[in-house]
Amino acid sequence: MSEREPVGDHLPDGPPVVVEPEGRPFGGSTGPAELHPSDPDAAGRAVLAELSRVLGADQVRTDPDTVRPYVHDEAEWAEHGTPLCLVRARGTADVAAVVAACARHRVPVVARGAGTGLSGGANAVEGCVLLSLERMTAIREISAGERLAVVEPGVVNDDLRAACAAQGLWYPPDPASAPWSTIGGNVATNAGGLCCVKYGVTRDYVLALEVVTADGEVVRVGRRTAKGVAGYDLAGLMVGSEGTLGVITEVTVKLRPARPAAPRTVVGFFDSLADCGAAVAAVTERGLQPAVFELVDRECLAAVNRWRNAGLPEGAAALLLAQTDLPEPAAAAEADAILAAFTEHGATDAMASTDPTEADALFAARRMAYPALEQLGMGMLTEDVCVPRTRMAQMLARIEEIGRRLDVRIATVAHAGDGNLHPLMLTPHDDPAARDRTRAAFDEIISAAVELGGTVTGEHGVGLLKRDGMERELGPRVVAMQRAVKAALDPHGILNPGKAV
Amino acid sequence: MSEREPVGDHLPDGPPVVVEPEGRPFGGSTGPAELHPSDPDAAGRAVLAELSRVLGADQVRTDPDTVRPYVHDEAEWAEHGTPLCLVRARGTADVAAVVAACARHRVPVVARGAGTGLSGGANAVEGCVLLSLERMTAIREISAGERLAVVEPGVVNDDLRAACAAQGLWYPPDPASAPWSTIGGNVATNAGGLCCVKYGVTRDYVLALEVVTADGEVVRVGRRTAKGVAGYDLAGLMVGSEGTLGVITEVTVKLRPARPAAPRTVVGFFDSLADCGAAVAAVTERGLQPAVFELVDRECLAAVNRWRNAGLPEGAAALLLAQTDLPEPAAAAEADAILAAFTEHGATDAMASTDPTEADALFAARRMAYPALEQLGMGMLTEDVCVPRTRMAQMLARIEEIGRRLDVRIATVAHAGDGNLHPLMLTPHDDPAARDRTRAAFDEIISAAVELGGTVTGEHGVGLLKRDGMERELGPRVVAMQRAVKAALDPHGILNPGKAV
Repeated sequence: MSEREPVGDHLPDGPPVVVEPEGRPFGGSTGPAELHPSDPDAAGRAVLAELSRVLGADQVRTDPDTVRPYVHDEAEWAEHGTPLCLVRARGTADVAAVVAACARHRVPVVARGAGTGLSGGANAVEGCVLLSLERMTAIREISAGERLAVVEPGVVNDDLRAACAAQGLWYPPDPASAPWSTIGGNVATNAGGLCCVKYGVTRDYVLALEVVTADGEVVRVGRRTAKGVAGYDLAGLMVGSEGTLGVITEVTVKLRPARPAAPRTVVGFFDSLADCGAAVAAVTERGLQPAVFELVDRECLAAVNRWRNAGLPEGAAALLLAQTDLPEPAAAAEADAILAAFTEHGATDAMASTDPTEADALFAARRMAYPALEQLGMGMLTEDVCVPRTRMAQMLARIEEIGRRLDVRIATVAHAGDGNLHPLMLTPHDDPAARDRTRAAFDEIISAAVELGGTVTGEHGVGLLKRDGMERELGPRVVAMQRAVKAALDPHGILNPGKAV
Repeated sequence: MSEREPVGDHLPDGPPVVVEPEGRPFGGSTGPAELHPSDPDAAGRAVLAELSRVLGADQVRTDPDTVRPYVHDEAEWAEHGTPLCLVRARGTADVAAVVAACARHRVPVVARGAGTGLSGGANAVEGCVLLSLERMTAIREISAGERLAVVEPGVVNDDLRAACAAQGLWYPPDPASAPWSTIGGNVATNAGGLCCVKYGVTRDYVLALEVVTADGEVVRVGRRTAKGVAGYDLAGLMVGSEGTLGVITEVTVKLRPARPAAPRTVVGFFDSLADCGAAVAAVTERGLQPAVFELVDRECLAAVNRWRNAGLPEGAAALLLAQTDLPEPAAAAEADAILAAFTEHGATDAMASTDPTEADALFAARRMAYPALEQLGMGMLTEDVCVPRTRMAQMLARIEEIGRRLDVRIATVAHAGDGNLHPLMLTPHDDPAARDRTRAAFDEIISAAVELGGTVTGEHGVGLLKRDGMERELGPRVVAMQRAVKAALDPHGILNPGKAV
């Protein structure tokens, strides 16, 4: 959810273009990748009839051209099944009607927002009702007195942020997909982003949810108050559950006061990954708290140079980018301290800047990394491992070693301050052997992250691509607990089956 | 958990003195309030035999003098049952052995820390094994590089905070019970405190837990990494679950860098609750973020005056106390802005101070409120309602009205910035009619909080005292979801049965 970058002109205007999976997809069991609605069985026919009666026939779409853009998210390596139909809900009542009908007839229902996910979490499962929340776009309330907002799930992240900013308020979670991804999808995947190194992830901002449960009932979990401990934290449990425990129909989020406008930016290039990791560790150990702390590796730098002739140092192993947003003069002091940590650990071309234009230019390498890599015209598989902060340099070295040994080109950006790395594996199209090597590299990177005490997914979600990795990470007992919770809240297994757990 | 104040010399030195409940207790079904171990039935005898064999007979205490201090927490109105025995675990293996034996024989197990809770959550249920974690006091790791600490559950909050401070780190959650309460208990109840208005509650700091599940297995949930979305947030689910989903045997918490030492303090007295509420609202609406923002009402002020001849304004309806901890000069600007919000809304005797001694004196009214009220020699029942911030003045007015109408003396302190109020109902001993009126006031306050969109418990937990209120707040469907989760993770209902859900 968090690392969808601007990769082409089509993205702001509509749902993603379908990319056919090549070769054997990851994920296993969602069925054949046909792009027209499946031939419904008796249960499917009953659901179609019931939904047409309750919602109106025009709300229950089965025509391939309409349905096609909704059958998968942006995880091009994840498979998808063929849906029974598509419903674009107009409100909670539509969602409740869909889930109730699916519950009665034991038909799976897959809820989705903008489809910007990178793990296949929103992909159609065979014979499902695809339930799009993208039309539920009302911002119901923004309250400075309560420091909260109440929104429908289809509100786009950037739209909420803009509406909050207009009132001097700030909704921090800022996944790279923010111009397109929806709050509902952000909540379903517990999206992160650049700010979370200082300000936390989506879960840290969810106060309350309206949810349609697996039996089609509408409930409210969580609270409007700043604090509350009445009962288990079901709202927190729903966050990151990828539509497998309920369908989110309203979200109440905490807000912060708007920040001062002009952050200070610090950059440094490093000749070795070890130096770079030491600099990151020094920033943390010295109690500094950058509001953004990113890493761009040599493959990305080279791609940006090739694409835009950017003149970035070709010999550098990595670039670190940090921003501080403290009030002045504390910001100046923090920027100086970050710069010192960089230079003491061997940074070249290190500098700090307060000029917004210059800061923007400095961040260009980070912002342009994905589109520059896209120019290579290769298939891209994005990883999302997260390791303990002090292990980041080790993890980067492991990724480089895996890429070299398996002959897979890997470019990495990372939320350095969080230890969250996004190695992008670049694979030539129509090269099955290369594809197999990439799959092997994907697995080895996951294993390395788990070995280093990390997690297989820092912010993108389990979806289909990380199910095996999650089981490796959590072990059978915790997986059994996860499944017990799933069975308790979705006893017939109709909610996004086969995903996440 | 959060509002246990220094109420007597006995508290720092040992477990709380037993206070006999008078009249009909709240909570209903934990059995007779005998203070010697129950006559065990066959299952109980089997558990005693098994634990004596596995742990050693000296670890399984049934002698009344040893067991008595452990049978209840500090909720003097909550009932408790008679335990089968007491085990003071020395480590995870002891906990696993106890839970496994209890699981085999379907005997309840009640885990507890320091017993400073205020809702009866740690009270013995009839025939249970009382499992004290107070001896598991190791601080296993404090890492500046990872900004985390790993501790056993019996570590006292203040001890962890001191150990962190020695390394330039800070563990923010600061319940008033911090000198005695344990991290395990803080996690089990999701404790709050003064700092949470700016820095969040215990849940916001829990990264990972080692937990003994209801079948006696040891699992790890959560993660050491800064971010992670692999599977449902079971660690978050355990936080605040009051020992009903598992027994916590190790806690990994996030830390922050230590704060600058000297905060600025702002105080103001208000003649009307409405003005006071407007001042609180103004602080929030203007985007100010005090690190502490407390309210002390007229009953508390009068009690402090009586006890210590403190010379506080007798006519004042309430005192507001705020602290800002921004770096200077931003702190000075924020203090000025808070002071302006106070004076613009009618504060008298309003002032700001940077002098630590003066700040301490200003906070004395807050700190001395509980012991001053204790001097009255009456029974005390503490409420913990939390309302939306903008409703605080209304809630205060409702509390005053309820007290007047039902002839119950109520003194209120509040975490004003959070809308979390702690009305203390003062009841003469040996006056059953007064006790009935207090019970009625307790219920009416809960109803008023729910009516105002609030919660029945902001930070103390449900325990026994808030079970009815919780059901009123959440409604039957959400309660059913809570119970489904409970049944999924504790199918035989042996973990702290009758509490929380």
